[in-house]
Amino acid sequence: MEYPQSFEELVECFKMLPGIGNKAAQRLAYHVLDMNQEDVQRLSNSLINFKKNIQYCKICGHICEGDTCDICKDESRDKSIICVVETSKDVFAMEKLKEYHGLYHVLHGTMSIMDGKTLDDLNVHSLFNRLNDDVKEVIIATNPTREGETTALYLAKLLSKENVNTTRIANGLPMGSNLDYADELTLLKSLEGRKKI
Amino acid sequence: MEYPQSFEELVECFKMLPGIGNKAAQRLAYHVLDMNQEDVQRLSNSLINFKKNIQYCKICGHICEGDTCDICKDESRDKSIICVVETSKDVFAMEKLKEYHGLYHVLHGTMSIMDGKTLDDLNVHSLFNRLNDDVKEVIIATNPTREGETTALYLAKLLSKENVNTTRIANGLPMGSNLDYADELTLLKSLEGRKKI
Repeated sequence: MEYPQSFEELVECFKMLPGIGNKAAQRLAYHVLDMNQEDVQRLSNSLINFKKNIQYCKICGHICEGDTCDICKDESRDKSIICVVETSKDVFAMEKLKEYHGLYHVLHGTMSIMDGKTLDDLNVHSLFNRLNDDVKEVIIATNPTREGETTALYLAKLLSKENVNTTRIANGLPMGSNLDYADELTLLKSLEGRKKI
Repeated sequence: MEYPQSFEELVECFKMLPGIGNKAAQRLAYHVLDMNQEDVQRLSNSLINFKKNIQYCKICGHICEGDTCDICKDESRDKSIICVVETSKDVFAMEKLKEYHGLYHVLHGTMSIMDGKTLDDLNVHSLFNRLNDDVKEVIIATNPTREGETTALYLAKLLSKENVNTTRIANGLPMGSNLDYADELTLLKSLEGRKKI
């Protein structure tokens, strides 16, 4: 007894998505069976439209419709400062603060020894092309994970040869957290990064 | 700073799928961005084909391409016995055994007091229409959960008025399991269902 062919095909397609294995894909397919025709059509169309319209900004690598993103196009942004992040998600996280008014540069990942990914595999060359006399500071805001820290170190080393200040976002205890529950590395970073008040 | 419109639309569409919230939908959308054009097209098409081709068998309610499923069409199956299950998934699970050669009837769910679902909301009427002189036994193989058991009880009561034997699949300790770790209800059922060896 085998699943009908259109069923198998949809399951195979769902399995291309991250974190979706055979069981989950089947569950999604059964759900699609119970969805109404319009919703399925809408999902199908939105995939095509998405793929057609969304691309990476040719300047900073952030996702956008068209070839340049709203931030790079925005004349009111502070062009003297570039914040380097791993993914577009991080740009949205930063923008939510409404405190940072500079530009961004999205690396699309991190260096990874395990996956054999070096700085050359990231969106780094275009960052150096952007460094002109206007740019005074590059903030490296990769995640404080092993891969993110490695990337930050290597990137900082390359940037040290350029005429630009390189900074790294601070590590320490998250606000509202508890010394007692903090892991040792975070506590250590928090102590090392202490400031006079 | 908002997500581009095509991005938002795809995220909204993904959120229609079960178990996929905002974060997961965004993660899927970012993944689609990195998928190649052909794969996205394939996923989009498979949704449409699936919806077009897959439907419920008009006799038993099992999923199939066309209006009657392979099992109902199969002349070699034992027409004297109908196994009632909750979902099509259960049919595939039973078929894997290669031990059962009768027919099936898929209820598409269970009764649920919480959701206000009664027997009338399930694929039950068509079951009674199938009961002719050929049918000697109806096996109720709903899950041994609260909802499944309730459904089995009510269904058995209705079937008792028909000229047919009604049976229920056995409860007890799963093979390879451990008395020590079994929950009390399972152990109780196992004891109640003891057989002479």
